[in-house]
Amino acid sequence: MNTSICLLSPAEQQLRLQKLNPAGPMIFCDPANLFYLTGRIFAGYLYVSSDLKPVYYIKRPLELTGGDIRYIRKPEDIAADFPDGFDTLGLELSSMPAADAMRLQKGLNARELVNASPLIMAARAVKTPLEISLLEEDGIKQAACYGRIPGLFQSGMTDIELQAAIEYTLRLNGCLGIFRTNGPMELHMGSVLTGENADEPSPYDFAMGGHGISPALPVGASGEEIKPDSVVMVDMNGCFNGYMTDMTRMYCNASSASQLNPRVLAAWECSREICHALAQAGLPGTEAKRLYELAVEIAERHKLTAYFMGHRQHAGFVGHGIGITVNELPVIAPRSKAVLAEGNVIALEPKFVIPGFGAIGIENTYVVTPAGLRCITPAPEEITPLI
Amino acid sequence: MNTSICLLSPAEQQLRLQKLNPAGPMIFCDPANLFYLTGRIFAGYLYVSSDLKPVYYIKRPLELTGGDIRYIRKPEDIAADFPDGFDTLGLELSSMPAADAMRLQKGLNARELVNASPLIMAARAVKTPLEISLLEEDGIKQAACYGRIPGLFQSGMTDIELQAAIEYTLRLNGCLGIFRTNGPMELHMGSVLTGENADEPSPYDFAMGGHGISPALPVGASGEEIKPDSVVMVDMNGCFNGYMTDMTRMYCNASSASQLNPRVLAAWECSREICHALAQAGLPGTEAKRLYELAVEIAERHKLTAYFMGHRQHAGFVGHGIGITVNELPVIAPRSKAVLAEGNVIALEPKFVIPGFGAIGIENTYVVTPAGLRCITPAPEEITPLI
Repeated sequence: MNTSICLLSPAEQQLRLQKLNPAGPMIFCDPANLFYLTGRIFAGYLYVSSDLKPVYYIKRPLELTGGDIRYIRKPEDIAADFPDGFDTLGLELSSMPAADAMRLQKGLNARELVNASPLIMAARAVKTPLEISLLEEDGIKQAACYGRIPGLFQSGMTDIELQAAIEYTLRLNGCLGIFRTNGPMELHMGSVLTGENADEPSPYDFAMGGHGISPALPVGASGEEIKPDSVVMVDMNGCFNGYMTDMTRMYCNASSASQLNPRVLAAWECSREICHALAQAGLPGTEAKRLYELAVEIAERHKLTAYFMGHRQHAGFVGHGIGITVNELPVIAPRSKAVLAEGNVIALEPKFVIPGFGAIGIENTYVVTPAGLRCITPAPEEITPLI
Repeated sequence: MNTSICLLSPAEQQLRLQKLNPAGPMIFCDPANLFYLTGRIFAGYLYVSSDLKPVYYIKRPLELTGGDIRYIRKPEDIAADFPDGFDTLGLELSSMPAADAMRLQKGLNARELVNASPLIMAARAVKTPLEISLLEEDGIKQAACYGRIPGLFQSGMTDIELQAAIEYTLRLNGCLGIFRTNGPMELHMGSVLTGENADEPSPYDFAMGGHGISPALPVGASGEEIKPDSVVMVDMNGCFNGYMTDMTRMYCNASSASQLNPRVLAAWECSREICHALAQAGLPGTEAKRLYELAVEIAERHKLTAYFMGHRQHAGFVGHGIGITVNELPVIAPRSKAVLAEGNVIALEPKFVIPGFGAIGIENTYVVTPAGLRCITPAPEEITPLI
């Protein structure tokens, strides 16, 4: 094991810390934020002073070295380094449980707590060149796994059987399996949808629904057979290195996509048109809500508004930032105040649910560049025959 | 889809609500607690009055019926039903993010917040007969999947390849994949450990470590080859219905366990002896810490104390409650104040890490009964040959 507490180069760590633009001292302990700021996960706390010096208060693992490290048993042990307490202390109030925040406030004698979550989510929204290269690596690996999906299909398979086979392929090719979300969304490695199941409303803020195989996880594949001449939407986990790309592709249980119903082909064509139009329009400085409006305009032109981002239940966005977690900033939504910045990485997923045919649409992950959105999920966008 | 908001019978729901023993009105929104109190997951809030009447404030999914349901867009919408606010309001302060708790307190005009998390964790610790039958179902399914493990092994396989094959088998046999934890533990469907990797300290409060395949998820299988004459510890996901059992079994890359090094066999024998002794001693009314002490005494008698629950890094418990999440009450640990009660369900996992040989031990899930612990993970405990 590399025992160095920080697996990022000093320059990379400083680049990330400097984006925090702190109003005062901060303490981080959310796994995704620790991974962002150190390149590793540990149980403990990362203190960042106003002048951006990191101090590591660690519970587990043992044996870490390098950097300014203190091993602690409980959070109150941090107080020994700060006998005067804090006038203000930044904590991740959007993810830290309330009882933990109160315990830290009391134990460290912090007069006022500041929410550091928006600060670090804003920092994480603009990826560094290293982060972009990791995301590019994910996209290549995810695309390679998707290329093997037709070989996994057997006639008579259910959606969950195909999903399990895709999961196995992903895992054998290095996918970590974990699907980190920002907030309480639950999903196991993604979603495979076919037929009417796509129209089942789910409790989660995902683009698509699905009944699931248990009320304990009511989303996605339901055990429905993938019927002849039907389509299948595959939206599976792209996390190979701690970052994740998001990609959706369509498959059909037919020997050629040209056999499919014209309404299916029209919805797929519309989804691709939206992706391409938004990729062109997505220059730095563009308002996120303008991209959403553009997607809606194209759906309207195709007379698909009633089915856009769901049918019985609609999702309120067409894209989302992505990185260490699947849902980061900016969100491409009607009331978003975000403006695209160079280095944002966003997934666009214009999807439709057409009654009688199911979920239809594609999704790619893009880097915001001065020339528009650059796609980093390099897989063919066509509806691919499974047989 | 069954659109009823409560998938439990009225009697079952009342049984669970009555265990809450509330000091005042409470609001729940943690998915595990919503599943406990309604049998389903939804996005929204479950209000429980002092006289245990549930009201459902729901954001998603749409179309739910039955019970006292209000569809809301944001938590502040709940306030319309409570114009006078609350003198005290119970919230899940141990899991709810601080910012969400502050928003609810302000939006609902709650003068004082009470932590409802300990109340509901105490209620969940004593399972109802229906919950025990669901856990029994999990144990049978998990044991059946473990029975297929020898057929999955091929010579030259790595730990992660065997793990991925076990994951696939579990998923094809109905495992939901999701691994719910209480608090910030991260794991993908469990752990397969072989060789020196077991001794790598992990950041998580699990019994065993492991390097993992990425610093982004530093636990478990590392890509190490399963060498001839070595042992493999399998501790994989037992969640088939929203509840989960926990079971660990040992396998060996040899044609018979009798070929293994005597130190390996001695550690396995000690683990089994601890399980059996604690199962006999675990009567209702027994102190949880007494069970831990008994485990330590047996390990000492076998001269295995230095390797008990880890070697380079030790875990501070020998067992844990389990149910909807993998880590519930009671915890079988030296400073635990818990006393076993009939209906507790606990996993006992006395494990050892022997340098040069790796992780060794078994784990079973048990129900606390008047006759002691009743095992509900019915698989042979012997070290099973993979070849």
